[in-house]
Amino acid sequence: MATVKIWSDAEAEADPRVKAVFDDIRATRKTDFVNNVWRALAGQPAVLETTWAQVKAVMATESALDPLTKELIYMAVSVANGCSYCAHSHTAGARAKGMTEAQYQDFLAVIGLASQTNALVTSLQVPVDPEFEV
Amino acid sequence: MATVKIWSDAEAEADPRVKAVFDDIRATRKTDFVNNVWRALAGQPAVLETTWAQVKAVMATESALDPLTKELIYMAVSVANGCSYCAHSHTAGARAKGMTEAQYQDFLAVIGLASQTNALVTSLQVPVDPEFEV
Amino acid sequence: MATVKIWSDAEAEADPRVKAVFDDIRATRKTDFVNNVWRALAGQPAVLETTWAQVKAVMATESALDPLTKELIYMAVSVANGCSYCAHSHTAGARAKGMTEAQYQDFLAVIGLASQTNALVTSLQVPVDPEFEV
Amino acid sequence: MATVKIWSDAEAEADPRVKAVFDDIRATRKTDFVNNVWRALAGQPAVLETTWAQVKAVMATESALDPLTKELIYMAVSVANGCSYCAHSHTAGARAKGMTEAQYQDFLAVIGLASQTNALVTSLQVPVDPEFEV
Amino acid sequence: MATVKIWSDAEAEADPRVKAVFDDIRATRKTDFVNNVWRALAGQPAVLETTWAQVKAVMATESALDPLTKELIYMAVSVANGCSYCAHSHTAGARAKGMTEAQYQDFLAVIGLASQTNALVTSLQVPVDPEFEV
Amino acid sequence: MATVKIWSDAEAEADPRVKAVFDDIRATRKTDFVNNVWRALAGQPAVLETTWAQVKAVMATESALDPLTKELIYMAVSVANGCSYCAHSHTAGARAKGMTEAQYQDFLAVIGLASQTNALVTSLQVPVDPEFEV
Repeated sequence: MATVKIWSDAEAEADPRVKAVFDDIRATRKTDFVNNVWRALAGQPAVLETTWAQVKAVMATESALDPLTKELIYMAVSVANGCSYCAHSHTAGARAKGMTEAQYQDFLAVIGLASQTNALVTSLQVPVDPEFEV
Repeated sequence: MATVKIWSDAEAEADPRVKAVFDDIRATRKTDFVNNVWRALAGQPAVLETTWAQVKAVMATESALDPLTKELIYMAVSVANGCSYCAHSHTAGARAKGMTEAQYQDFLAVIGLASQTNALVTSLQVPVDPEFEV
Repeated sequence: MATVKIWSDAEAEADPRVKAVFDDIRATRKTDFVNNVWRALAGQPAVLETTWAQVKAVMATESALDPLTKELIYMAVSVANGCSYCAHSHTAGARAKGMTEAQYQDFLAVIGLASQTNALVTSLQVPVDPEFEV
Repeated sequence: MATVKIWSDAEAEADPRVKAVFDDIRATRKTDFVNNVWRALAGQPAVLETTWAQVKAVMATESALDPLTKELIYMAVSVANGCSYCAHSHTAGARAKGMTEAQYQDFLAVIGLASQTNALVTSLQVPVDPEFEV
Repeated sequence: MATVKIWSDAEAEADPRVKAVFDDIRATRKTDFVNNVWRALAGQPAVLETTWAQVKAVMATESALDPLTKELIYMAVSVANGCSYCAHSHTAGARAKGMTEAQYQDFLAVIGLASQTNALVTSLQVPVDPEFEV
Repeated sequence: MATVKIWSDAEAEADPRVKAVFDDIRATRKTDFVNNVWRALAGQPAVLETTWAQVKAVMATESALDPLTKELIYMAVSVANGCSYCAHSHTAGARAKGMTEAQYQDFLAVIGLASQTNALVTSLQVPVDPEFEV
């Protein structure tokens, strides 16, 4: 159940702005699959366009960090923010980008540890070391 | 200002359990610097010991993900959890592990984008695509 | 699946404290529909009463901000807190209070942007400008 | 204490990309004041440029929701995300856009109530009413 | 630095609504100390009154859970929400209600573990066991 | 729908590391029921082993806080972190450890109040009282 309509391919085809974004997603990702987040955003074309432009620029463009590392950071944020859909889509994304089971185990160990120490540090209200100052 | 005492080196030296952990931190990290989170945990020796054991096992042991990638994931979780001290310590940690300015810029772009799309997806309550099912 | 029983109308009718709250919800909102949050709270009558009293005082009473603005603020908090039910109920509430599609698109743009800049600011640990001091 | 350098006006003047953004901030907002978030982002020019472009498009452009309402939604997200700097800057921003004390009191009442009911609903795991389905 | 004025005793004395709440806080808690959260809320008398009424009813009234247990739950929520002031005030509150160092160590161990397993469960998107259904 | 396989008893029996943990869970908890979080972690044996070791040490070992109090703190963190599965499992856990309906009502009142005041304090950016300093 969503709070907005999930657009079908037929509906997307009939709207030029939505069609343009869906076409670019398919061309950029070299797959016919357009996942639900884009179908949910289709009713808000301005948000659809700017969000896709940003995802394309950040995630689908070669840059200093390799694609899998960027996906792992994305997954980490998504889990910490408690976003169920995002945990699903970015775990799938990391696997598609070659994440091994051993890397996944590492990922889980790091996010578990980080969450634990974040809670301890917040409870103890640890003062920042001057050594960390820029 | 912390909610607990921040132990000095002299105080740590005088307590065998705390001294053992501080000695191991210094030996493992090959530096004399022991940052405040360990000094804040020193009053809770059992938590100090198990937390350090876990940090050592996860972060200071060779594994499937390289040290910088693990640090970036740790940073991402820390920022998403809003932990001020952790943002400081893990940004410093990532720099110590070789994070370049270009990689840092990538990191910021990814966490910004992830936070934005997490919010959109949660607002839209996007249903999980069957394609993501394991 | 809930962690408590969801009370039916018949069960609510049979309990004077619950019936009184349900009657007041219906009278205040001018609808027979009592949504599930109240049915879930019915087993905890003291929490049911104080929560409804607060919702009525804050949301169903004329005040400085108009009803739609208050609903949009409520939605924003609910999304940021990752509350799935609340995202559904307050999006429906905003629509019932007249939110247009263009306003909804604005809402999505603002919460996406805010989430993004919140993450950047937390990562950068930006110091508060003296100009913001009261 | 920040995790990055906070750029002075002199430093910003000397970098064409940063200068261009700072000039546009000043022109758009009709004030000489450039607050710290932009000075912290100056070391990451690509993030600086895209973030400012988004803030300008969403917050400084006329749209379906009035400027104060957008600022209140921004504040609400910032508070729920626990961003200290953002709470300061957007409370100041709302006041600059005309928020009255009575409206601020309403704002506080709504975010307090929303946070409370979000917690109750999450604890009770209330199922979404079919009436909220789109 | 706060986003509102922190009221002094003299200012509180001069405002009948604020004076009444401050007097009741002092009488209820049997101490002359009124901590800053109330001085920050003093500019919003309606929120001040309803918040204090709720704190008094929930925390300062005998009920099914003993005062220390309620304070520990309050601390746990405050830490998970990343509220710095609240971590300080409720850790002080728990100590004032008799929390021992051993109990504090337990508290830290539980919140660290809970944060860790919460992150794992969210990443794995574990389905709810039918055995937990009410 | 999970992001990993949920292991059946037959699959767990066939893997010595997983079988050892499942056997210990059953022996420690004196029940045949192994809930889904362990079945989801089974594919990551190192994380499974260390997580169970920590849960056993913290939650299933006699310590300064009684088992129900520890469970209530765990529930509080889980709710504040928005973990749906965890809200289910720890509410069930608290009931199994003897939580009465009156205690549950108290729990709900405290987490609701804490969430509300956390939001107010974060919005107001209340400065820490010197009295809370250690």
